[in-house]
Amino acid sequence: MGRQKVYLDKLARSFQVRNLLLRQALAECLGTLILVMFGCGAVAQLVLSGGSHGMFLTVNFAFGFAATLGILVCGQVSGGHLNPAVTFSLCLLGRERWRKFPMYFLFQTIGAFFGAAVIFGMYYDALWDIPGCFNVTGPKATAGIFATYPGKHLSIVNGFFDQIIGTAALIVCILAIVDPYNNPIPQGLEAFTVGFVVLVIGLSMGFNSGYAVNPARDLGPRTFTSMAGWGTEVFTIRNGWFLVPVFAPFLGAIIGTMIYQVMVGFHVEGEIRDQKSAAEENVRLTNVASNDNSLKATKEMQ
Amino acid sequence: MGRQKVYLDKLARSFQVRNLLLRQALAECLGTLILVMFGCGAVAQLVLSGGSHGMFLTVNFAFGFAATLGILVCGQVSGGHLNPAVTFSLCLLGRERWRKFPMYFLFQTIGAFFGAAVIFGMYYDALWDIPGCFNVTGPKATAGIFATYPGKHLSIVNGFFDQIIGTAALIVCILAIVDPYNNPIPQGLEAFTVGFVVLVIGLSMGFNSGYAVNPARDLGPRTFTSMAGWGTEVFTIRNGWFLVPVFAPFLGAIIGTMIYQVMVGFHVEGEIRDQKSAAEENVRLTNVASNDNSLKATKEMQ
Amino acid sequence: MGRQKVYLDKLARSFQVRNLLLRQALAECLGTLILVMFGCGAVAQLVLSGGSHGMFLTVNFAFGFAATLGILVCGQVSGGHLNPAVTFSLCLLGRERWRKFPMYFLFQTIGAFFGAAVIFGMYYDALWDIPGCFNVTGPKATAGIFATYPGKHLSIVNGFFDQIIGTAALIVCILAIVDPYNNPIPQGLEAFTVGFVVLVIGLSMGFNSGYAVNPARDLGPRTFTSMAGWGTEVFTIRNGWFLVPVFAPFLGAIIGTMIYQVMVGFHVEGEIRDQKSAAEENVRLTNVASNDNSLKATKEMQ
Amino acid sequence: MGRQKVYLDKLARSFQVRNLLLRQALAECLGTLILVMFGCGAVAQLVLSGGSHGMFLTVNFAFGFAATLGILVCGQVSGGHLNPAVTFSLCLLGRERWRKFPMYFLFQTIGAFFGAAVIFGMYYDALWDIPGCFNVTGPKATAGIFATYPGKHLSIVNGFFDQIIGTAALIVCILAIVDPYNNPIPQGLEAFTVGFVVLVIGLSMGFNSGYAVNPARDLGPRTFTSMAGWGTEVFTIRNGWFLVPVFAPFLGAIIGTMIYQVMVGFHVEGEIRDQKSAAEENVRLTNVASNDNSLKATKEMQ
Repeated sequence: MGRQKVYLDKLARSFQVRNLLLRQALAECLGTLILVMFGCGAVAQLVLSGGSHGMFLTVNFAFGFAATLGILVCGQVSGGHLNPAVTFSLCLLGRERWRKFPMYFLFQTIGAFFGAAVIFGMYYDALWDIPGCFNVTGPKATAGIFATYPGKHLSIVNGFFDQIIGTAALIVCILAIVDPYNNPIPQGLEAFTVGFVVLVIGLSMGFNSGYAVNPARDLGPRTFTSMAGWGTEVFTIRNGWFLVPVFAPFLGAIIGTMIYQVMVGFHVEGEIRDQKSAAEENVRLTNVASNDNSLKATKEMQ
Repeated sequence: MGRQKVYLDKLARSFQVRNLLLRQALAECLGTLILVMFGCGAVAQLVLSGGSHGMFLTVNFAFGFAATLGILVCGQVSGGHLNPAVTFSLCLLGRERWRKFPMYFLFQTIGAFFGAAVIFGMYYDALWDIPGCFNVTGPKATAGIFATYPGKHLSIVNGFFDQIIGTAALIVCILAIVDPYNNPIPQGLEAFTVGFVVLVIGLSMGFNSGYAVNPARDLGPRTFTSMAGWGTEVFTIRNGWFLVPVFAPFLGAIIGTMIYQVMVGFHVEGEIRDQKSAAEENVRLTNVASNDNSLKATKEMQ
Repeated sequence: MGRQKVYLDKLARSFQVRNLLLRQALAECLGTLILVMFGCGAVAQLVLSGGSHGMFLTVNFAFGFAATLGILVCGQVSGGHLNPAVTFSLCLLGRERWRKFPMYFLFQTIGAFFGAAVIFGMYYDALWDIPGCFNVTGPKATAGIFATYPGKHLSIVNGFFDQIIGTAALIVCILAIVDPYNNPIPQGLEAFTVGFVVLVIGLSMGFNSGYAVNPARDLGPRTFTSMAGWGTEVFTIRNGWFLVPVFAPFLGAIIGTMIYQVMVGFHVEGEIRDQKSAAEENVRLTNVASNDNSLKATKEMQ
Repeated sequence: MGRQKVYLDKLARSFQVRNLLLRQALAECLGTLILVMFGCGAVAQLVLSGGSHGMFLTVNFAFGFAATLGILVCGQVSGGHLNPAVTFSLCLLGRERWRKFPMYFLFQTIGAFFGAAVIFGMYYDALWDIPGCFNVTGPKATAGIFATYPGKHLSIVNGFFDQIIGTAALIVCILAIVDPYNNPIPQGLEAFTVGFVVLVIGLSMGFNSGYAVNPARDLGPRTFTSMAGWGTEVFTIRNGWFLVPVFAPFLGAIIGTMIYQVMVGFHVEGEIRDQKSAAEENVRLTNVASNDNSLKATKEMQ
């Protein structure tokens, strides 16, 4: 076993990345890959099996627990955002630096791209087994395995609103879970709780357009499908629907952040600030008093 | 980032509410909004998709985990009741002050009202897509998305009994979970456990009339539907059914509190009281003894 | 609030039971009531709604989480067995006194009886809505809501074997969870883990005869149904099938206890005993040595 | 109770195995038995009930939570691998000794064999109730209850790829969960988290060939079926398909280990090594300095 240890050590040293931001971006990439691989895998299983090996509930479970697992894999390194809207919200609140945002966005999208690629490879035979297997629309459409498409009933305006609400709900819950002034759950259960949030969003907000609520999770796989055989229709369909799950989530993140802060966050934070400043005031007064005393003492000594 | 911090600080100070009760009421409002938004959202997804994107089980999961998330969002500030019957039960036991009750009731109902409004906006297009979309009765009735209505088989008496049992079961479990003398679960998991309680109630007590077991969760959305297009029929149907989920839960809360206290609570509490009074007795005797001694000592000193 | 406290205190004192065994039996009674109320409630919801408000999976979830909640309600007082087979197994291992066994068995059965009664009351209208609502056999049979009946394919021998295996599996898992020498989960999560055990048993061993694996859970509700209108057929059907879920679980408990102890328990226990006896040996030797020394010292002093 | 204790003690001493590796192998055997018993039990329930008592989701839940329970039963003794691919991956990383690998593989396969046997016995009547009950292929095939068989659409190449991806995903998640340098979850929740991993793999990667991702889980039950009445067809079908779930998982374990280490593991590990070596450097320098000082001191003393 001695030789193995030496070899492993050599490997570890040659692959080690020392730049923190790159390391974090790599971790986000793997985390988002896991999210999309398991999530879209469940959609693929549902669509390709014609319902025998899945239903909408299994997709909800898969996305929820995939979020949990993605966060567990990368959380200690990068924070486990897996979603540019989450990174954006934390930047808004000053808890992450803004220069992280583009880097995370890029690597999250790359991770989602490869997550879709893994599922494409895994279900390659099953995909070809379906007649008209590269359709973007129609009853046998398979493009929905990877990216989200709006239901027939949905207008662009309502779709935009749908993505805003979904992301705002996600952000309110995540901010409550990670609020440093209001930590409601035991350390280490954040990933599970975020998984439940994603599960519940799927259970109650998934009918309109499949609850992307994540620009990277939608853009990466969509780009993959455009290259893998579904063509540019994935971008042009419904007058550029693909822009909705890219932009609406950021607006939702702003709204969600505001709602949480106005309803809960500012007050909790403010109370702690009040206590702290009261304590500081006390210290100042004491200092003044003791200064007075020392002044007196000095005078008396003179 | 310096300027952002300053701006955030200014925002925080101007929005900070210093009145504790109002702050708690606001938190309850947001928590109940989340409960109703996710819960009714799941019913909407089930009804509007015609069963393709949901089933009764998904509604149960959604209400259960929505309760968990609602409690997590507001629990540290307000206790996370989300339900006037819970507030009522804690007041009965002297663990919350009675003046909290009307304030919580009001803001929980307001939160539920807006939760229903969010879902109405989110599924606006999908709602209009259904023929006869604002029906309160009939096979395509959509009023049941927001408030609860009794099944055809259910008489008012049995419905009243149903709500009493459901709420009593909820209260027994919640009291066991938060009993200060009998804390069975690790700190911080209360919200998850209450979520399981709500889930199980939905799995086993949801067939009669949809397990409101919460006056605010039912009254708020019902008021919203009466204003949003379903009309006053939501109140007049079945000779004022809407009064059942408003009043029966309070009766259920009384019964549930009594059952838990008589079967478990009083004994656990009493044991601790017995131990304490025994200890006090000891202290008293010791004091008497030492008083005697000091008396003697004093006398001897004289 | 002062007067309320006084009144509550008076109530608490008059209801307090000071006999420990009775108090534990009362707690077991409430816990088993909750188990059966939620569990059989889910079966009732499935059967009475004709499948629209439930499926076999929801019954599995309900029994699993009902076990969790039942244990949470009474666990701190009585240990949360909810099942005479579990009490039996712990008595076998010498972890509970044998005189607890009949008392627990009785009160668990009483709790299960009343749990069934609550569900009967709750779904009274729904029950009468079904044609032939008090049938024990046939396609519209409702007796299976409360007690378990064997599937058509099942012989008595295989049914007996089925109950033995199910209970043995339950006992192996429970013993692993509560083994004092092998505690694999954080304190306070036992109830949740046992809930998962019951859930999994339902998912994989529920087809033959509905996984009673608990004499009290079956006997109590069966007695209730015989009194509530289903008649003595609930006892006489299939040549006294009702004896199988009463007696087989105890045999299963013996087998499960043996398997766990032979495969894992004895070794873990033995290792600790070995360490302890080694330590004691050390202490003994040291004592001898020091005795020698003190002897010498004494001698020298003489 | 005195006599019972003595008897139990005698039993414990006569059954105690003192060889650590054998004890661990026995524990792995029981853990894998539980995994396969509950997992294959759920498949049996689904297949034999014709869908009334199960669906693909229940199989996913059963395998997931069965993994949790299997790990809980044996985890403290043997580590709870339950899967030769996991043992292989930990050996690769130098965290387990290579000589454990064949022993664990053997006993895991034996455990899986007996797990299948238990389910065979349990559902013996139900099996004979199905026409053509020992078919390996066809619509009423029952061999799939125990071992995994590829879907019609699947080629051997894609099947091999499917098993590699599934196992790699499993290994990445497990390595993240147990990484000693990156412990993201509270102590004692590993078993639950691994259960979620298995659940998610089933939800999203189960359509092709039933997600064995475990040589022991597949080979043991397959051997059992070949002996119990299904004949040698279980091995010869599809040109020796049975070799795929035996060999592909090891390849997947290598790939999964590499991906996790390259994307996350090496960097976390490296950072800690860097800190340690920096600290050591410091200590060395201090030592040199203090040596210098002591040298000086010694000189001065001379």
